[in-house]
Amino acid sequence: MTIGYPNRKRQLQKLIQRLGLSDNVPIRWELLDLALTHPTLSAEANYEQLEFVGDSVVRLAASELLYEVYPDCPVGEFAAIRSILVSDRTLAEIADGYGMSQFLLAAGSAIRDKAGEESRLADCFEAVLASLYLSTHDLSLIRSWLDTHFRQRATEIIQDPARNNYKAALQEWTQSHYKVLPEYKVQQNRQIHNDEQRFTAAVWLQNRKLGEGTGRSIKAAEQAAAEVAFLSLYDQTSVRI
Amino acid sequence: MTIGYPNRKRQLQKLIQRLGLSDNVPIRWELLDLALTHPTLSAEANYEQLEFVGDSVVRLAASELLYEVYPDCPVGEFAAIRSILVSDRTLAEIADGYGMSQFLLAAGSAIRDKAGEESRLADCFEAVLASLYLSTHDLSLIRSWLDTHFRQRATEIIQDPARNNYKAALQEWTQSHYKVLPEYKVQQNRQIHNDEQRFTAAVWLQNRKLGEGTGRSIKAAEQAAAEVAFLSLYDQTSVRI
Repeated sequence: MTIGYPNRKRQLQKLIQRLGLSDNVPIRWELLDLALTHPTLSAEANYEQLEFVGDSVVRLAASELLYEVYPDCPVGEFAAIRSILVSDRTLAEIADGYGMSQFLLAAGSAIRDKAGEESRLADCFEAVLASLYLSTHDLSLIRSWLDTHFRQRATEIIQDPARNNYKAALQEWTQSHYKVLPEYKVQQNRQIHNDEQRFTAAVWLQNRKLGEGTGRSIKAAEQAAAEVAFLSLYDQTSVRI
Repeated sequence: MTIGYPNRKRQLQKLIQRLGLSDNVPIRWELLDLALTHPTLSAEANYEQLEFVGDSVVRLAASELLYEVYPDCPVGEFAAIRSILVSDRTLAEIADGYGMSQFLLAAGSAIRDKAGEESRLADCFEAVLASLYLSTHDLSLIRSWLDTHFRQRATEIIQDPARNNYKAALQEWTQSHYKVLPEYKVQQNRQIHNDEQRFTAAVWLQNRKLGEGTGRSIKAAEQAAAEVAFLSLYDQTSVRI
């Protein structure tokens, strides 16, 4: 099942080229090989430990980029955008753009598991980021190509006319923790003092009200409710698992 | 309230010396100054944005150290230990050891708020780590002194004869999210096939059973239950806020 070392190295070099990195960069090839080895292929030598490191690497890359590009962004919005950037969905999309799965060594059972594809891609992508980070102990082999993707997504989120960033971030969170979407209940207010109070939205997760907000449109009220909910979750989670 | 620049710089140099760093290292002093400025002193120019970056920096420092020192540690244990290392409690303890609060510029109202002291110290400590990271874009100004603290705590957790790491990690998590401790309910089993099943413990959070485990002692059963609970929370939180 494993590919002989010379072939494997040529394969990995191809990935490095796709990332736009030159052949001369100091890659720790044995780590990159491990990052692209699924646990079904080896119970001991696989990407799990690197993925653990990579989860911190990608978080730092996203934080540093946001800090540089949007120095005056309120911290709550930073956190909302970051949680979208480092979500399995975003990471799997980026990995897929580089055809990462064709470099992943895995048993057939894993490859046929379509339901697990997104998290598998995100996991090995995080491991690849860790292998690049550990090659130089900085983000130089990463930010040169990852910044473009993060910057584009961050711009989309920030320029979204509906400002749905908190809704999107909250949705990622509830889907990941509870496998359900949050539910919005909206009512039109009769007596209002200003236009901003025309609608009131409450966002619910199962039987728990996460937040409430008002706005001049249904969407604006929902976004306001999502913001309250997301920021309260963010405040509560000073210990991040 | 603010201190004139020459004095402030001397003050910050003192902190850098305490960290064991030489005077010649390329510190971005304006960032270190910001990292030690509380929001009560300036609503715009304070440590909040840096704290956002620092939360990723400290997580990476902990991950990289654990990966180097315990290369064969199961990933779940890595995660449990890391969540203790990056908890407000641990960070505040380390910051306190350097007398960090005497360098923090804050309004009197914040300084008198004893209840908020731990998270205030942890927050500005994360911001300080960000300012050091952003000075060189690597962890060289951080790991030279932080490794000792993390290594010592990680060793204590791993060598704890009761192996209470999952209990400790779970406790940090429930306290941070729900402001309560998890509750353990233990029963002695009558008919057992082996000694490992002498006790069964279930760990509850409010009305929700988080996990169950067995062991030859009450403590071992509790730890087994905490492990199940912690790992299931870890699996559910692929999106980390």
